[in-house]
Amino acid sequence: MDDGRQSTFHTLIFMSSHNAFYAQSGGVTPVINASAAGVIQTAAKYPEHINKVYAGQDGILGALYEELIDTSLESPEDIEALKRTPSGAFGSCRFKLKSIEEHKAQYERLIDVFKAHDIRYFFYNGGGDSQDTSYKVSQLSEQMGYPITCVGVPKTIDNDLPFTDCSPGFGSVAKYVAVSILEASMDVASMSSTSTKVFVMEVMGRHAGWIAAASGLAADERGLGPDIILFPEVDFQPQAFIDKVQRTVEKKGQCSIVVSEGAKYSDGTFLADSGIKDAFGHAQLGGVAPVVTQMIKDQLKLKCHWAVCDYLQRAARHIGSKTDMEQAYALGSAAVELAINGTNAVMPTIVRTNDSPYEWTTGQAPLAKVANIEEKMPSDFISDDGFFITQACRTYLAPLIEGEDYPSYTNGLPDYVVLKKHKVNKKLPAFVGE
Amino acid sequence: MDDGRQSTFHTLIFMSSHNAFYAQSGGVTPVINASAAGVIQTAAKYPEHINKVYAGQDGILGALYEELIDTSLESPEDIEALKRTPSGAFGSCRFKLKSIEEHKAQYERLIDVFKAHDIRYFFYNGGGDSQDTSYKVSQLSEQMGYPITCVGVPKTIDNDLPFTDCSPGFGSVAKYVAVSILEASMDVASMSSTSTKVFVMEVMGRHAGWIAAASGLAADERGLGPDIILFPEVDFQPQAFIDKVQRTVEKKGQCSIVVSEGAKYSDGTFLADSGIKDAFGHAQLGGVAPVVTQMIKDQLKLKCHWAVCDYLQRAARHIGSKTDMEQAYALGSAAVELAINGTNAVMPTIVRTNDSPYEWTTGQAPLAKVANIEEKMPSDFISDDGFFITQACRTYLAPLIEGEDYPSYTNGLPDYVVLKKHKVNKKLPAFVGE
Repeated sequence: MDDGRQSTFHTLIFMSSHNAFYAQSGGVTPVINASAAGVIQTAAKYPEHINKVYAGQDGILGALYEELIDTSLESPEDIEALKRTPSGAFGSCRFKLKSIEEHKAQYERLIDVFKAHDIRYFFYNGGGDSQDTSYKVSQLSEQMGYPITCVGVPKTIDNDLPFTDCSPGFGSVAKYVAVSILEASMDVASMSSTSTKVFVMEVMGRHAGWIAAASGLAADERGLGPDIILFPEVDFQPQAFIDKVQRTVEKKGQCSIVVSEGAKYSDGTFLADSGIKDAFGHAQLGGVAPVVTQMIKDQLKLKCHWAVCDYLQRAARHIGSKTDMEQAYALGSAAVELAINGTNAVMPTIVRTNDSPYEWTTGQAPLAKVANIEEKMPSDFISDDGFFITQACRTYLAPLIEGEDYPSYTNGLPDYVVLKKHKVNKKLPAFVGE
Repeated sequence: MDDGRQSTFHTLIFMSSHNAFYAQSGGVTPVINASAAGVIQTAAKYPEHINKVYAGQDGILGALYEELIDTSLESPEDIEALKRTPSGAFGSCRFKLKSIEEHKAQYERLIDVFKAHDIRYFFYNGGGDSQDTSYKVSQLSEQMGYPITCVGVPKTIDNDLPFTDCSPGFGSVAKYVAVSILEASMDVASMSSTSTKVFVMEVMGRHAGWIAAASGLAADERGLGPDIILFPEVDFQPQAFIDKVQRTVEKKGQCSIVVSEGAKYSDGTFLADSGIKDAFGHAQLGGVAPVVTQMIKDQLKLKCHWAVCDYLQRAARHIGSKTDMEQAYALGSAAVELAINGTNAVMPTIVRTNDSPYEWTTGQAPLAKVANIEEKMPSDFISDDGFFITQACRTYLAPLIEGEDYPSYTNGLPDYVVLKKHKVNKKLPAFVGE
């Protein structure tokens, strides 16, 4: 479509086709760009409905500030490479639209930009907060008379979106975390007779223990993987924890622990906030792994090591889950199919039809119900003692990390794509104030 | 060889063949087991010289305590799988033999065990300290009259062994670190307009900056990878560092930093030891990344994130370097070839014959010269401002991360092998005291 004549040709043929806006929102994932590829490649199949896909530079901010990227000017190879590129290729943002009543100017601006660029489709790729934004935009048609079809594309490593079997992004993080603790537990096991006895790995998940739970997939009958998992859902009991570490070291010679950044005491205080100070007495930036490690070191006098995965876990496309990538792509694709069929204010979902072998299809959920609901871990996914996952949890999680989908490599490094991001010429005065 | 009759047959035919002892020492790596496979599979080719390979349970301790693993009882498939299994499959240890003068009893015990099990070949797979042990054992023949052929097998993620182009283990850690910071830098770049502006990743390397340097391979003309690297070799200058971070954020919108755990002030104090205390005023366990991050947060008021790779980097066989794996195997194999040719007190080495394309062969170095020498980063490998690597460094490092060598997977997790570790029957009374 980067051929001017062809573009004119399309415009002449499909007078009823309009442009689409696609944006990435919130924390990025290893596979959010696979959803972008799904949107862009599927839209190209329906020129009678969708002319161009404009991507927002830095999410919804790209619409407000008229910073639109013409995805038709990217090469097909680069769009294909999005399937295996982590991060948000168009930029993402942490920005939540207020309600139409609270900030009408924002919505008027959106309509101005949409009108100026003939945008009638809106695809918003994000988590719970973002689906709230999707829902507000989907109401523009009704509340402000602008004809727009809005479909949310689910994404979040937190796996806390409702109505969908899982959230794209989670499966790859789950795989990274399970593989990492498997490997580290083997390292510790091989050194523990004379060196480190306890290893603590911190993972994301401020409000829900899905990611921490996924580490449990690495546990097997050979004694590898984590021995203890600390969930945000379970109030941290220091003595019970220390006892469990001690028993594990006595039995196995070592202990591997995964702790969620959201682990907290019964009074709601995060372990990560429990009083670490620098030399000047300033409160120190988070990190629950060192807190837990210090506790073990102080009380059991064991040699410990700790790791904090942080962004590495949500950027690790090199160990992406094939299942996750395929679902991310399928949901981007399904969003376009829903939109061209005129379905407004929905989010496509993953519907599980079988556990093993894992079978799934796509479904849909109304944005009105999706927005701002957090899907919690079911209580029967956590063992009675609170330190591990149950078989029910394994059955649910296992298929989500299945399959490897490697990027290609050059000179030892993955061929991740950086798009050209050609901007569409602006047609409006600058937007003042968010 | 797990067939009793065949074993007897071998014994009859090869009256002059003896057993070999192989042990893993010090911190493990993603490919130390590939060296083990090289030793075991190559030894099997020379039954006229080597009967069985006994592996020490937990390194040299296995010899002292007569905890010998009969590797001939492992399946050929499991030995082959060692090529793609991280950790130390036979157990490793942090234990340095004293000199013969200081602790003759240890050496007498070694000779007793060697005699009892007809061990005449000694392969010790480790770093600088371990090659010192190898050297001491190699002198048993001369100093205590026991005929043993001792060959060291180099291994260390620290890349600080002399006489060899690189140390097996380093290439895979280098690849992990380069891939990880590439991915994280893309994550930060895509979020920085409204979220995190600075990311800090801590890597290993207490005494030398090789691992930190390897992260620089991810830097490219697209602006990805690390912007700043903090080496142990360069005295940390807080103001110059903060200024550099500020300029980078002003120019690019974000900044990715890799810091070596060995980064230190000009007075020799490690940054990691600079005074972080817990709520009770106790000094907190290491972690230089949070220290650096806090510094940036305090002075520049920027949103930061940090990660600590710790054991994940040295266990990450899932992203192992093919070059590294092949070299680890080749050196295990070369050690056996040297030994059966009667070469005592040497360590096989990697000899680089061309940079690009990378070509290498194996050579050898005398253990007497290897022991306890640390190969430092050449000063022309660090940029003038002290915050990055030079082209000379890239030329050296680039081939070491080349090639991917993936393990196979089942149910989404790598098929890492755990050996059966059948112990050889003990023939001696227990060893008392190390």
